[in-house]
Parts: sequence; structure tokens; C-alpha cells
Amino acid sequence: MPIAAPSRAELAAAAPRTIREHIRAGRWRGHTKGLAVGFHQANLIVVPHANAFDFMRFCQRNAAAFPLIHVTDPGDPSLDAVAEGGDVRTDIGCYDVYENGEFSGSVTHLNDLWRADHVAFLTGCAISLERPLREAGILLPQAAGDEGPSPMFMTRIACKPAGVFAGPLVVGLRIVPDRYVVPMTAVTARHPDCHGAPVHIGDPAGIIDRFDTPDWGTPRSVPAGHTAMFWACGMTAQAAAMKARLPELITQSVGHMLVTDLPVTVGR
Amino acid sequence: MPIAAPSRAELAAAAPRTIREHIRAGRWRGHTKGLAVGFHQANLIVVPHANAFDFMRFCQRNAAAFPLIHVTDPGDPSLDAVAEGGDVRTDIGCYDVYENGEFSGSVTHLNDLWRADHVAFLTGCAISLERPLREAGILLPQAAGDEGPSPMFMTRIACKPAGVFAGPLVVGLRIVPDRYVVPMTAVTARHPDCHGAPVHIGDPAGIIDRFDTPDWGTPRSVPAGHTAMFWACGMTAQAAAMKARLPELITQSVGHMLVTDLPVTVGR
Repeated sequence: MPIAAPSRAELAAAAPRTIREHIRAGRWRGHTKGLAVGFHQANLIVVPHANAFDFMRFCQRNAAAFPLIHVTDPGDPSLDAVAEGGDVRTDIGCYDVYENGEFSGSVTHLNDLWRADHVAFLTGCAISLERPLREAGILLPQAAGDEGPSPMFMTRIACKPAGVFAGPLVVGLRIVPDRYVVPMTAVTARHPDCHGAPVHIGDPAGIIDRFDTPDWGTPRSVPAGHTAMFWACGMTAQAAAMKARLPELITQSVGHMLVTDLPVTVGR
Repeated sequence: MPIAAPSRAELAAAAPRTIREHIRAGRWRGHTKGLAVGFHQANLIVVPHANAFDFMRFCQRNAAAFPLIHVTDPGDPSLDAVAEGGDVRTDIGCYDVYENGEFSGSVTHLNDLWRADHVAFLTGCAISLERPLREAGILLPQAAGDEGPSPMFMTRIACKPAGVFAGPLVVGLRIVPDRYVVPMTAVTARHPDCHGAPVHIGDPAGIIDRFDTPDWGTPRSVPAGHTAMFWACGMTAQAAAMKARLPELITQSVGHMLVTDLPVTVGR
């Protein structure tokens, strides 16, 4: 008898490895927010070996955008180092493919695209902070669901370049009740592996030219009694690939993160 | 009139850039311990571009031994990113050269050895912790000076390999009064950029086969009321190069660190 597709509630209670197995088998195609709370969920960036050393220096120099969790050996699809039994080709629900710096489509696995010269980078993500934020008493209102994807913006802040990689720092937005500005800053600052402290707090014009037209996602307004907070974002990789017209880049799709076995902790 | 060589006391009070200028001009050939207190001093590892991506993954996977501070672009000798006006070829007082995994000699500059395909890695070092330790009230007895170089040991702990790089974790030893074991652990744990928490505390036999014959430096005994503490050490790179019989590796000589402009802080 085939294994039934899990409900979101069932999946939310499952271990990281079980979640990966459901995704690998195609039984779960939804986003990963709210799953495996307390474990790192990671961004994926795949580049050819020829670009990998440049990209790794780009990550090291812009560590707020790219807190490195793991870098695979060229051609090796195993993610055992961070996700037991994991496979980079199948364990994410949806992948985005960029060619010559342009988005060319999404796929549900990389079985046909993964090559012997591919290198996969896994970088930390703010989605992993759900437990530390909750433990600090920060209970952010749930999104209504009809707002569309969270906006991301290319800023006027330039990344430190490395080889072919350069471009603007991309930030994600959180609009939070004013009383949470200080604790959100304090908690996130303790988690450099999840982008760390905010890049900017308050008036978006400080770092962004057009707050009403985000580069990705849906515009938001800042209600009275709320503050806009901005954190470095892994989408910085896509911005660099677009700028460089990089022949090839593969990433996870927005909201479809790699669920790892690594617990979110402070310090190493 | 030529600039006079500084005394150690003069140098200890000097800014990092001034120290580098004295070293570059040959006016200072001594070790860097006790200089630029409060600033990061870094290990240097130079490898050919062909080995650089492997070595960078080796660093990421064994971050306790290799807390990355900066990685240069291939062939670029500038250290501006971490040391204003700095030059990797001249700003260290003594460099060790390894060929085919064997130590082949020391040089006082790399002007003749630096090539367009060289990449320099700078990694954090425990020597940078002098100020945080002092601020925590940890006043370690000064070495008498006639003990010889501090010992370092290849352990039974295997590094996570990456490409050609593999081998044992190398640790450095500190013998501390028992009352300092807890605060030394706590303070160093807060500084992952300087090797972080100890790898091992107490009986050396837990990780080392022959405590009486260190792989580098002079043997020590542990007096009554004292404890042996071991931290991951940048010499792990030399051990890996020896094991791989790496055609070429250049490092700083023991005690001759790169003095950077980066303040030692907790967090990023």
C-alpha cells in the first residue's frame, strides 16, 4: 500500500528526515515554513565547479547574506554532512533554474540537470528562527495568506565582489509591531547562521529606492504602530547571477527550503 | 634619516598598520605575541589556485581549526580587506615553505615566491584572545622564556576531508591553573573566530597518543594544581599538506602572525 501524503499538521510534527522523504517521493509539494521547527532550513545555490571558488569567496565576504552551512564536493549529490541520507537532487520540493542570468523555469527535482561538475552551497535562512523568536516571547501575527509572497528588495548597499560575482545586497522585509523591534534585533543578532542582526530598521528609503515596487514578492505598507525591519537575504545570489549573466545557477524556489538535521543553536 | 627599529615596548603600543610597516621594512623580525592587543592576528596559508576550492571547503568543514577571516582573489597580494595597505608578500616577519609535504625552509618575504595563481587564506588564532582573557580576570603566568616553543600535537581526531585535504586535527596546549579551566572555556567559547571552545580538557591520552613527544614544539609537564587544555590549531593545515604530499604550501612561521586591523569582538 503506498504511503499516504501527509497533512501539514502531520508534517509539522515529523522529524527532518521524514519530511525529506515525503518531499523526495513527491508526497509533499508545499512550502516548508512551520516544518521541523528548531532545525535549520537552508537555501540552496548550485553553480558549476568553474564558478564555485569565486562563489565561495563571495559567500565568505558577504556572510550576512550567505551564512555557509555546507558546500558539497563537485558532483557529489549527498547531503549526509547536514541531512542524513539527503540528496541535493530530490530533497527540495521546487527548484528554480536561471540561464544567462534569467529565470528559465522551475523543476521538482534535479535528476536530469545535476552534473558531475556541479557544486551545491547550503546557506542559513531566517525561516529557521521560528523557535528562538517564540522562546523570546515574540509572537508575530500570522500572515493572512492573501497577501502574496513576502517582498524582497535590491538595496543601494553593494556586496563585496569576488570573481564574477557582484551586485546589490538583497534584503527581506519583516513588518513588526514597534514593541518587537528591540527583541527582534537582539534575538536575530545572536544567530549569524540565520543572517544575524538586521541590516536596517525603519524608513525604507535609507537603503531602498522604491519600497512600493519590490524586486520580488508583493508590496506591503507599514501600518501605524509598526516598523519595517530588513535582513540580508539569500536572494542576493540570484541578483548577482542576473548581474553577471551567469550561464547557469540553480536555487531552491522561494519557500521551498532544504530541511536539515542541524539544530538551531547559539554558538558552535 | 632612516626610521629606527622599534623596541618591543614601542611596538606593543603601536597601531596595527604601523606594526605591519615595521615588519615590511625589516625593522622587526621578532614574534607578534603581545602586539596590537585587541586586534585579530591571523594565520596565513598560501596554496595554488588549483587547490584553493578544496582548501576552502576543508576550512569550512573544520572551522574550529580554520576560522576564515579572509581569502584573497587569485594572484592578488592586497590585504586591504582586513589590513589597510597590507601586502601578503611582505607583512609577515617569517614565512615557512613546504614542498611535497615537507618543510623546505623559511623566508622573510614572498616577493620572489608569490605567483599569479596563488591564493592566501587568513584564519583566526588564539593569540588574539589576550584582551578578552585579561578582561575576564584570567592572568596566565608568563612563560619563563627558556621553555622553548609551545607544543602542538596531531590528535586521534580526524578532520572532515575535502578534495586532497585530510588528516588529523592538530591541537595547541595551554597548561592553566585549575581555577581557570571554567572561565578559559567560557571565554574562548565566545570567540569561534579564534578557534572557539577547547577540543579537550584534562588527560591528554583522551585525544593524543604521545604527550611526551609533541609533533611541534617542546614537551611540557602538567604541575600539580594545573590542567592541560587543548584547542584546535591552524597547524592542522601543515599536517594535511604533509599527509597529501601537497606540492606547495606556504604559511606564516610559528609566532609570526599577520597583524590585522580587525578588532576582536563577540559576534558579527
